[in-house]
Amino acid sequence: MKNIAILGSTGSIGTSTLDICQRYPDRYHVIALAAGKNVATALEQCRQWRPAVISMADEPSADALTQQLKSEGITGIEVVHGTAGTVRVATHPDVTFVVSAIVGVAGLEATYAAVALGREIGLANKEAMVAAGELIIAKARETGATILPIDSEHNAIHQCMRGGTPAEVKQIWLTASGGPFRNTPLADFAGITPQQALKHPTWVMGQRITIDSATMLNKGLEIIEACRLFNLPADRVRVTIHPQSTIHSLVEYVDGSILAQLSVTDMRLPILYAMAYPERVASDLTFDLATLSHLDFQQPDLARFPCLRLAYEAARAGGTHCIALNAADEVAVDAFLRGELPFLGIPETIERVLAATPVRTPASIAEVLAADEAARHLAREFLPQPAHAA
Amino acid sequence: MKNIAILGSTGSIGTSTLDICQRYPDRYHVIALAAGKNVATALEQCRQWRPAVISMADEPSADALTQQLKSEGITGIEVVHGTAGTVRVATHPDVTFVVSAIVGVAGLEATYAAVALGREIGLANKEAMVAAGELIIAKARETGATILPIDSEHNAIHQCMRGGTPAEVKQIWLTASGGPFRNTPLADFAGITPQQALKHPTWVMGQRITIDSATMLNKGLEIIEACRLFNLPADRVRVTIHPQSTIHSLVEYVDGSILAQLSVTDMRLPILYAMAYPERVASDLTFDLATLSHLDFQQPDLARFPCLRLAYEAARAGGTHCIALNAADEVAVDAFLRGELPFLGIPETIERVLAATPVRTPASIAEVLAADEAARHLAREFLPQPAHAA
Repeated sequence: MKNIAILGSTGSIGTSTLDICQRYPDRYHVIALAAGKNVATALEQCRQWRPAVISMADEPSADALTQQLKSEGITGIEVVHGTAGTVRVATHPDVTFVVSAIVGVAGLEATYAAVALGREIGLANKEAMVAAGELIIAKARETGATILPIDSEHNAIHQCMRGGTPAEVKQIWLTASGGPFRNTPLADFAGITPQQALKHPTWVMGQRITIDSATMLNKGLEIIEACRLFNLPADRVRVTIHPQSTIHSLVEYVDGSILAQLSVTDMRLPILYAMAYPERVASDLTFDLATLSHLDFQQPDLARFPCLRLAYEAARAGGTHCIALNAADEVAVDAFLRGELPFLGIPETIERVLAATPVRTPASIAEVLAADEAARHLAREFLPQPAHAA
Repeated sequence: MKNIAILGSTGSIGTSTLDICQRYPDRYHVIALAAGKNVATALEQCRQWRPAVISMADEPSADALTQQLKSEGITGIEVVHGTAGTVRVATHPDVTFVVSAIVGVAGLEATYAAVALGREIGLANKEAMVAAGELIIAKARETGATILPIDSEHNAIHQCMRGGTPAEVKQIWLTASGGPFRNTPLADFAGITPQQALKHPTWVMGQRITIDSATMLNKGLEIIEACRLFNLPADRVRVTIHPQSTIHSLVEYVDGSILAQLSVTDMRLPILYAMAYPERVASDLTFDLATLSHLDFQQPDLARFPCLRLAYEAARAGGTHCIALNAADEVAVDAFLRGELPFLGIPETIERVLAATPVRTPASIAEVLAADEAARHLAREFLPQPAHAA
């Protein structure tokens, strides 16, 4: 039995994790949840799962949830809030496995705290690895914490890595759907609207990650995440466009063998893999090879997808440049979604922020958060004034 | 350093193995060779490799080789012949790794003798596993012999099996190129000539295996081989047609994850994998994923490829039916290549031989060889008389 904490329980990964817990009640016991501000969903999760502790994003949400629980006569659930609350969820003494699925740097401190305790971590929060990967990996080596990637690509790499030793890996290949603009001519990129960019061909995801998929910045973040998780330099993390998203990624070994992982595009599978590891648990998340007709591949175009180039540059620079890449992108994507920045303004903003950010390696999570804040501040300054908005 | 014996040194797998030995002289030392009747090539191999012992198929070839070695002043090479000679090669006391690559049941006794000594075996001789797989696997369990498959499909399965435990495997998928008649309408099968059947789209191989690829009997033998090697019932060994032969096979796990192995179509890669196992050794046998555009798949058609159906039936029956499948096919393919049997006569002959063969499990290699001989005899009886030949 693994005792589970979920950071980001009301999000897509969080609810999928709870679905896994529901399917395998003899394997997974929900101990602690960190939700956001959605009191109704948090209440629903409290009703069903009776966690020992639940954290809400802020005090008003926590108060509202406390009130609701009281009115329903539900007792024995500790309601906390904010960063300290999230850390409390991740570090609850009964927890053995932490699913880290808060989007952005908000989940960083709690994830780091769980790593510091040597817990098993199912990591879906790629920004944590991008912004603080060096610190998290160093701490995990120190404490013996196991980090199991839940991102489908890194999960696939983890599976394919079982075919040899790390020293036998020549390079790894992350597959990318290529997003909705895979075949869009460069000339048309300037006019891309949020509505167009929000249509992802294979995955249904949150807004920011969908835009990041359209710019391929998402794949860039995954390159950095892969460098940290698998201890590889950026030039050994390659990208191939694979529109069907059936092969989730590949590992190329020094002897010339390439191992690939294929499966349905359902996040419950990598979640289950991470939670069950080192075992594999039977599921109905089946991909029927008998229905497969073809798999397509093409090469990524760095001219049309400058975010990918910027990510490689940030991965090589490391430290504050990875933090700035992520932070600047988040600010730029927000502006794009509000209609205040053209599509090509996203890489432009990132590039300007990177150029203005000195390369340093943060020595603590506090320094990571400071660098993140500094990059966001810079990005906001570089945004066009409302009068010039697209 | 591994000390190598090669059963079938002058064939395609044998010469590829020697190529590996040449590339990695600090890893592999050639000790013993079993050649066929090609004295010139055997002499060439003696010159280059100076094995401690070499076996020829028969006494005249052995005498001719002895004569040649003497005339060139090459000493210290023991020349033997026949089955006893092949066994001598496989059991030479200095040998640690035996590459079993004699086509047909001729290599069976030597392979079994190496297994009985607990040696590491690189197995390319699929007929050994089809005809005597139950005995070989039982003996390997007893002696601790490691059997590493060299057939590209089984080698791929071996690699993908590293992603979990045997109990976590739901089923395996062997890929098949589909051969030259993959898309040929059923109505045209009756008129297929040896010349047409010998044109294989992706692999350059011997004549029998090329015809077996055209009838898909080869894939049938591989199904049986896979059942034995990986301890799976026939219904958990599936086949998918994949014309590019880039994915060499796949393992589907109970959780829904599928691992696949991709590489160049060069037998030196599975040979190197088997010889280097459990290590992976750097090679230039690289498949450049950046050049990949698409991979196609389709389902096998048991109506057009009755040999595949017959193989599944034989795999379920086991024992003498697997032996008869292989033996009857060899006789029928010979007749087809001589123009004495139509293409569809191959499965017809096999089906008649199977129908006339009682299902038994042989208790010894001698019983296997007797069953093989009985099936060949039956097959010859079922062949059309010269007057009725196609």
